[in-house]
Amino acid sequence: MSKEGNEEIDPEFITRLANFLEFDKERVQHLFEKNYLARNWGKYKYLLRFDKEISLIERGTVLYEKDGSFEIIMGFPKIRRAMVLDPTIKKHFSGLEKIAVEEKMNGYNVRIAIAKDEILAITRSGYICPYTTQKAKEKLNLKFFDDFPELVLYGEMIGPDNPYVPKDIYGVESIEFYIFDIREKNSGKPLPIKRKQEILEKYGFLQVRFFNEIPLETAAEEIGKIIRKLGEKMHEGVVIKDPEMVLSPLKYTSSQSNCSDLRHAFQFYNETGRDYMLSRIVREGFQTVEWNEDKIEFEKRCMQLGESILETLRKSIRSVKNGQRLYEESRIRVKDLKTADEFEDYLERLGIDAIFEEPQSVGEEYLIIIRKINKSTNDKTQAIWQGETW
Amino acid sequence: MSKEGNEEIDPEFITRLANFLEFDKERVQHLFEKNYLARNWGKYKYLLRFDKEISLIERGTVLYEKDGSFEIIMGFPKIRRAMVLDPTIKKHFSGLEKIAVEEKMNGYNVRIAIAKDEILAITRSGYICPYTTQKAKEKLNLKFFDDFPELVLYGEMIGPDNPYVPKDIYGVESIEFYIFDIREKNSGKPLPIKRKQEILEKYGFLQVRFFNEIPLETAAEEIGKIIRKLGEKMHEGVVIKDPEMVLSPLKYTSSQSNCSDLRHAFQFYNETGRDYMLSRIVREGFQTVEWNEDKIEFEKRCMQLGESILETLRKSIRSVKNGQRLYEESRIRVKDLKTADEFEDYLERLGIDAIFEEPQSVGEEYLIIIRKINKSTNDKTQAIWQGETW
Repeated sequence: MSKEGNEEIDPEFITRLANFLEFDKERVQHLFEKNYLARNWGKYKYLLRFDKEISLIERGTVLYEKDGSFEIIMGFPKIRRAMVLDPTIKKHFSGLEKIAVEEKMNGYNVRIAIAKDEILAITRSGYICPYTTQKAKEKLNLKFFDDFPELVLYGEMIGPDNPYVPKDIYGVESIEFYIFDIREKNSGKPLPIKRKQEILEKYGFLQVRFFNEIPLETAAEEIGKIIRKLGEKMHEGVVIKDPEMVLSPLKYTSSQSNCSDLRHAFQFYNETGRDYMLSRIVREGFQTVEWNEDKIEFEKRCMQLGESILETLRKSIRSVKNGQRLYEESRIRVKDLKTADEFEDYLERLGIDAIFEEPQSVGEEYLIIIRKINKSTNDKTQAIWQGETW
Repeated sequence: MSKEGNEEIDPEFITRLANFLEFDKERVQHLFEKNYLARNWGKYKYLLRFDKEISLIERGTVLYEKDGSFEIIMGFPKIRRAMVLDPTIKKHFSGLEKIAVEEKMNGYNVRIAIAKDEILAITRSGYICPYTTQKAKEKLNLKFFDDFPELVLYGEMIGPDNPYVPKDIYGVESIEFYIFDIREKNSGKPLPIKRKQEILEKYGFLQVRFFNEIPLETAAEEIGKIIRKLGEKMHEGVVIKDPEMVLSPLKYTSSQSNCSDLRHAFQFYNETGRDYMLSRIVREGFQTVEWNEDKIEFEKRCMQLGESILETLRKSIRSVKNGQRLYEESRIRVKDLKTADEFEDYLERLGIDAIFEEPQSVGEEYLIIIRKINKSTNDKTQAIWQGETW
């Protein structure tokens, strides 16, 4: 998809990098050739990104030369999903007395760090998003990066002016960054939860909601209650953590979040992966059995599932019937139109087909609506309305 | 899957076959090597089957040597699906004044023909099912094959003693064969509908329900009414045909049939194809838009969709939680236990893992319950209940 090139990789650079990674030179060369290791572009050309998981290095990991060596910003570790709370939590965290529960927010994953004296917002895939970077600079207390240049913030960009995952449910007016982890550069080691909270508080960062520590013994039941309450507010779910951050976390989501995913998926039914859709549906099955739901609760769940699927599907099919084209709408809010231009170039470079509307002045800023065309669902639906068979 | 071998293919046979098919010898050799063309086994070894669609030859087509040449029994032609009735019917059958509508029954597709003086029941894939063959011999007026050795019956095996697709909805006590097409050997050419009906009546064959000929102009509306009525009885849908059988047919199904497919699919959620599930869901979306359903009808459809998915999913997840193993149950009814033995061998040969229970005497016959274990869904569900992540 992306157009970044690995044109001119200096053999000496390969040697230095191979030594640092403790890989064979041939292997590093191969990673470049396959684009598994690729350069960012423009002024971020000095940043390499892993486009594939290699050995123990997560996809989206970023690295760059510094002081004669390299510095690494590790990618987001994949968080495994509990399909049932009991016995999964007990099994996964066996040996711990208590586990920590934090809210899993539905936003856009971003790492924020200082690299070569520049604040960067790094996406899950290891790109530098110019819009997110600008917003991070405006929103965050940058003194943190002077005091802790070796630490990286792992968080979610949340709010209606998030062009990737716009959400109104968190009471955020434009955009905020909610931090869930602080990790060390190079090792990727996360700070224990208490230490992370102290630092985030000290610098005035927003952090994801913390539901306290819960005894392992009663965790499944307590988390069940938390999930039901989060669901009522259409919130996504929780991440369950070892307070010391030694064992890897687990995630678990609300029925409303599953259904919200399905609503989005079926709107563009010919684009979204079949596995994505199926997994959301199967989660509903396990949750209703684990929670031993009665007839009324079960009927409600069936209705919600059916509606989540059919309502947006119907809307898309109808729109195309009425001659409209299907698109996904989002927006950005910028102080300087240059940021919007850079963001437009960035999306184009990533191969994303987006139309930027004319900027509207809002106070001191500009609001710009972005439309991403969903060509595949659009064309398929149109063909069917013109009498094509499936 | 199947274990039939192409061990000893005589080069002279290849030459004869290549001449007959008008293919290069190398191509025929290649088809055998790839098992795209394969022999049946045992006493049906003389029958070759196409395991893949090759040029204009349908998958499942069968051929054998006869009188110094070959005779072909063409496979089931794939019938394209209308996702919306209007304008698809008008477009597909443009130029016709009337189209013919027949019921699409939910059974097991089978071709019945005489080959080398033997009556055979040939499956969609081109295998000779010993059980279906025996049932066909018992149920059908075999004089037809003496009078018309060049014709093939294309039909559905229907009823509760059908071990492939057992259904109670047609009021069939054990098994019946409902014929929908008569086609010529070699050319695969179908008889016009009137001629087909005359012959089927003359020999007392059961035939799929005929809903008359309908003017093309009003067909979408009329078929909409037929589909709603069929749906109320849980019947599958219709096949829309050119009365002369020159243009290819179209199919269209009821919401109840889509939901019934989903009920079955989600029972074994880890086995059934994702595309299979998704296509059933998307059909519901097009039908509700085409029929312009009001709030109450739409809510009913949502509820039915949700229940179809979640009820069997819940049942499977619960069963495994309670320590039961998931299986699919069906049954056969035989006069002679030899038929059951042959059928068991046949399924084994096809790589299907089925357990045959002890035969129960019922009148002059034996009823045998067959259980097919659904290992993948079973194992996956069990692992989750043991605390594995997804």
